[in-house]
Amino acid sequence: MILALSCPDRPGIVAAVSTLLAEAGCNIRDAQQFDDLEIGRFFMRVVFDRLEGARSAAEIQGLVDELAARFKMTVSLRDAAARKRVMLLVSKFDHCLADLIYRWRIGELPMEITAIVSNHAREHIASTDLGDLPFHHMPVNRQTKMEQEAELWHLIQETQSDLVVLARYMQVLSDGLSAKLSGRCINIHHSFLPGFKGAKPYHQAHERGVKLIGATAHYVTSDLDEGPIIEQDVERISHRDTPDDLVRKGRDIERRVLARAVRYHLEDRVLLNGKKSVVFTD
Amino acid sequence: MILALSCPDRPGIVAAVSTLLAEAGCNIRDAQQFDDLEIGRFFMRVVFDRLEGARSAAEIQGLVDELAARFKMTVSLRDAAARKRVMLLVSKFDHCLADLIYRWRIGELPMEITAIVSNHAREHIASTDLGDLPFHHMPVNRQTKMEQEAELWHLIQETQSDLVVLARYMQVLSDGLSAKLSGRCINIHHSFLPGFKGAKPYHQAHERGVKLIGATAHYVTSDLDEGPIIEQDVERISHRDTPDDLVRKGRDIERRVLARAVRYHLEDRVLLNGKKSVVFTD
Amino acid sequence: MILALSCPDRPGIVAAVSTLLAEAGCNIRDAQQFDDLEIGRFFMRVVFDRLEGARSAAEIQGLVDELAARFKMTVSLRDAAARKRVMLLVSKFDHCLADLIYRWRIGELPMEITAIVSNHAREHIASTDLGDLPFHHMPVNRQTKMEQEAELWHLIQETQSDLVVLARYMQVLSDGLSAKLSGRCINIHHSFLPGFKGAKPYHQAHERGVKLIGATAHYVTSDLDEGPIIEQDVERISHRDTPDDLVRKGRDIERRVLARAVRYHLEDRVLLNGKKSVVFTD
Amino acid sequence: MILALSCPDRPGIVAAVSTLLAEAGCNIRDAQQFDDLEIGRFFMRVVFDRLEGARSAAEIQGLVDELAARFKMTVSLRDAAARKRVMLLVSKFDHCLADLIYRWRIGELPMEITAIVSNHAREHIASTDLGDLPFHHMPVNRQTKMEQEAELWHLIQETQSDLVVLARYMQVLSDGLSAKLSGRCINIHHSFLPGFKGAKPYHQAHERGVKLIGATAHYVTSDLDEGPIIEQDVERISHRDTPDDLVRKGRDIERRVLARAVRYHLEDRVLLNGKKSVVFTD
Repeated sequence: MILALSCPDRPGIVAAVSTLLAEAGCNIRDAQQFDDLEIGRFFMRVVFDRLEGARSAAEIQGLVDELAARFKMTVSLRDAAARKRVMLLVSKFDHCLADLIYRWRIGELPMEITAIVSNHAREHIASTDLGDLPFHHMPVNRQTKMEQEAELWHLIQETQSDLVVLARYMQVLSDGLSAKLSGRCINIHHSFLPGFKGAKPYHQAHERGVKLIGATAHYVTSDLDEGPIIEQDVERISHRDTPDDLVRKGRDIERRVLARAVRYHLEDRVLLNGKKSVVFTD
Repeated sequence: MILALSCPDRPGIVAAVSTLLAEAGCNIRDAQQFDDLEIGRFFMRVVFDRLEGARSAAEIQGLVDELAARFKMTVSLRDAAARKRVMLLVSKFDHCLADLIYRWRIGELPMEITAIVSNHAREHIASTDLGDLPFHHMPVNRQTKMEQEAELWHLIQETQSDLVVLARYMQVLSDGLSAKLSGRCINIHHSFLPGFKGAKPYHQAHERGVKLIGATAHYVTSDLDEGPIIEQDVERISHRDTPDDLVRKGRDIERRVLARAVRYHLEDRVLLNGKKSVVFTD
Repeated sequence: MILALSCPDRPGIVAAVSTLLAEAGCNIRDAQQFDDLEIGRFFMRVVFDRLEGARSAAEIQGLVDELAARFKMTVSLRDAAARKRVMLLVSKFDHCLADLIYRWRIGELPMEITAIVSNHAREHIASTDLGDLPFHHMPVNRQTKMEQEAELWHLIQETQSDLVVLARYMQVLSDGLSAKLSGRCINIHHSFLPGFKGAKPYHQAHERGVKLIGATAHYVTSDLDEGPIIEQDVERISHRDTPDDLVRKGRDIERRVLARAVRYHLEDRVLLNGKKSVVFTD
Repeated sequence: MILALSCPDRPGIVAAVSTLLAEAGCNIRDAQQFDDLEIGRFFMRVVFDRLEGARSAAEIQGLVDELAARFKMTVSLRDAAARKRVMLLVSKFDHCLADLIYRWRIGELPMEITAIVSNHAREHIASTDLGDLPFHHMPVNRQTKMEQEAELWHLIQETQSDLVVLARYMQVLSDGLSAKLSGRCINIHHSFLPGFKGAKPYHQAHERGVKLIGATAHYVTSDLDEGPIIEQDVERISHRDTPDDLVRKGRDIERRVLARAVRYHLEDRVLLNGKKSVVFTD
């Protein structure tokens, strides 16, 4: 099972958590913790096995709830084998989509894909084999944006999607939908944020003459490209690179950054810390 | 000798340059070129040896001048063994200064150091062995900025400094001085520009929760932190890093980025291209 | 057109090449050169356009042939738009195959795929959409190796494949076949060579406790994992990574390293230099 | 205080450690742990503060000793403010030495430098300001190696040095001295091990045509260049780089890799795990 928690820092938290698990007959396989001394908040992720004769999962949940109340914890506890349900949104560029689907197929990403949604018709996703995955075409323009988002939200609820991934979905979500998806909607932005927010970041980067380009996976908030960052990476470029070269090199960065961020989220490795994130990487 | 040039692109430039050198009895040891197709400008750097019986350096200069006139070239030609004269400016943090001096001592940076200038007294540069290098204390505040810059400019002229390096010199140069030093004043900014311009970039980076920090060496212009970028690099950080950790990790990035940029400049590897630079790295 | 050449170094090569192209009515768009001073050999790659009124491609070929004879050049000249014909070999792990096919579909890799060959049946390549690409199952064991390689060689000839890519093909080619494919067979080895040659490199890396793992794309020679290296890359790991984690992280490195190497080869950016390679990257 | 421990894995270790600290009136500021499931061994590093009214350091030591006995722990407990005593050995190349001394001067490396020892005379360390640090010239050749090592060992004991750093000390320690310094002697090897062991690794790398070079900091054992690796890093090179260029680029890698490894050791972040190391990085 995976326990992820955060709470105001005070002595005895680790002792309380580890004693609870030991007394419930569990063995800790992996634990990471972080004490944000600036704001006095404690973060922890524990992966544990229930040994022979251990308390049931439901009993452990009860004990954890009591502990959470005592320490004012924000807590999540779940079966490590349970797969999160994930909806993928895409526009015309499908390299991140193709990559996520491939990783899912070979078992690298522990998730169920509930739906692929695009504002473009299926034939535009020509290079990706969607197989039997349900595809939904939801075109959108300024006039129909409210209706399209309502349809999208309906589908998210209907499919019980835990996570929404904007895999190069080139539409800005409204404040309202961003709020509903708080902490469970990941976007990939094709720049090393906070540099080059907004549209055409590779062209901005080319214009500025930077020597490295990057990509950023972050949770979506109502502030465009300002949500908590989960993962970033960069690659070296030179004056020889045209904007088209940057787009090509960027694809590689985008897909590995997004895939890492999604995996971290699926494995409960990301804990929100105000406008930032704590990421217990492996 | 090192020939660096740029000119409007048109057929025959490479043929003209290489034929000139061949006929003058020179052998090209290294050549790099770049054609900026967007703006139709051509850039080239050639390192060549004068073979037995070659024309004299002065004669070659004459031939190059004729060529430059014909192709409307911006051109520089100089003896590869001639060392540029460099003035180093520093405030309290001397890691970049110490690093440049060490690299100069072991022969890695082919330059003459004309002076070390600081707005702080010499005892603040406690961890760096300045040896016999001339040190100038030039304190500055709002009221005395004009006078201090005049004194600085006087020293630059007197020492015939070709290059001024702001090695963590925490003062913004005035527009006037920036203009006088156009293309020959390199600053190290302790962020991955264009992110986190201005003051306390590591604190800004910590606040924003980025996953990599960086440093940027650029030519100084009147636009703060907007001059042509010469070199950048980054390093991975995590939520565990405090602003102090970022400052520590950043020192390593700053000094290697600045040292590379200075070396590129000393070896005529950097050619200005409007607000950007062409860097013929090795 | 793309001209790639190497020859013994002597004065006047660049002048001769560039004058030839200028006089033939061509404009150089990109040129890179390298003078290996240790062994006195010169390497050059030139991309040029035939301007209005230029000599024909056949005439230029004739002029280049004359030049090649005069300078004892090894030379290749071809139409930049002509796509090389590529055969892909794979065993059970298809991440590199899937990646190459995706890049080909979106136009990133300028090639024709002549065939997919595997020593395993098609159903083992379950996660990759082969579309209409011809698939050949060529099982192999010790007893049938000679026959299988004969069949493979026959197919290479029949399909007129210019390049053979071992995209995680887990069979060692015989000396004979390696010789026939000299300089046109690229393998991806899942370690940072020369460390961890041979079998199970990720397990070797885990055993040794290295802090970075890597992958290497190289031309196949009769010396196992000793051929000229085209491209390498690495990623940071930690004590927390199990061999399975290394396999997962390694997939990302392998596919980007192989894709880069293949693209370099397709664009005539790789010139052999004895046991090493000169790679004119972009 | 910093507690570092390892022991056979079994349920309840974290609970026991954290409960001990909580009951002794201490607050955990930072904890990292690792469970090596392959060999069933558990590793932990805990940084904690003694709160108002806590048990004394000596009492805590007593409690930890009892715990260590119960869990068969290898344990180290010490005051985080206590600085380790470090001896630095160098031959002719002093870039790592200069770097370590600079970092120590500005307070980045929490250590006392007990002595600088070189097999070359002091005037060979010309570019480094040794200040008042005691320097010992200990020349060595095949005939005098035993005597020189005896003298070295005597000095290590006399100066009560906790750690010996081979900062480009180009002599191989004998098996006997390596054994005496087991787990407290760090060497920097100028290659990405296990590639290019032994002499002249940059020349070996150039010969092989690798595309990245690296450096490795490891504990010294009687097996040359085979001891537990603490830290590694690499940098991209190209065919243009001569062996001299590699030496220059390598200096930057060597000094940052060695500095990180030394800091990790000084802060008790490195725990030995057979032929490997567990490094709790920050």
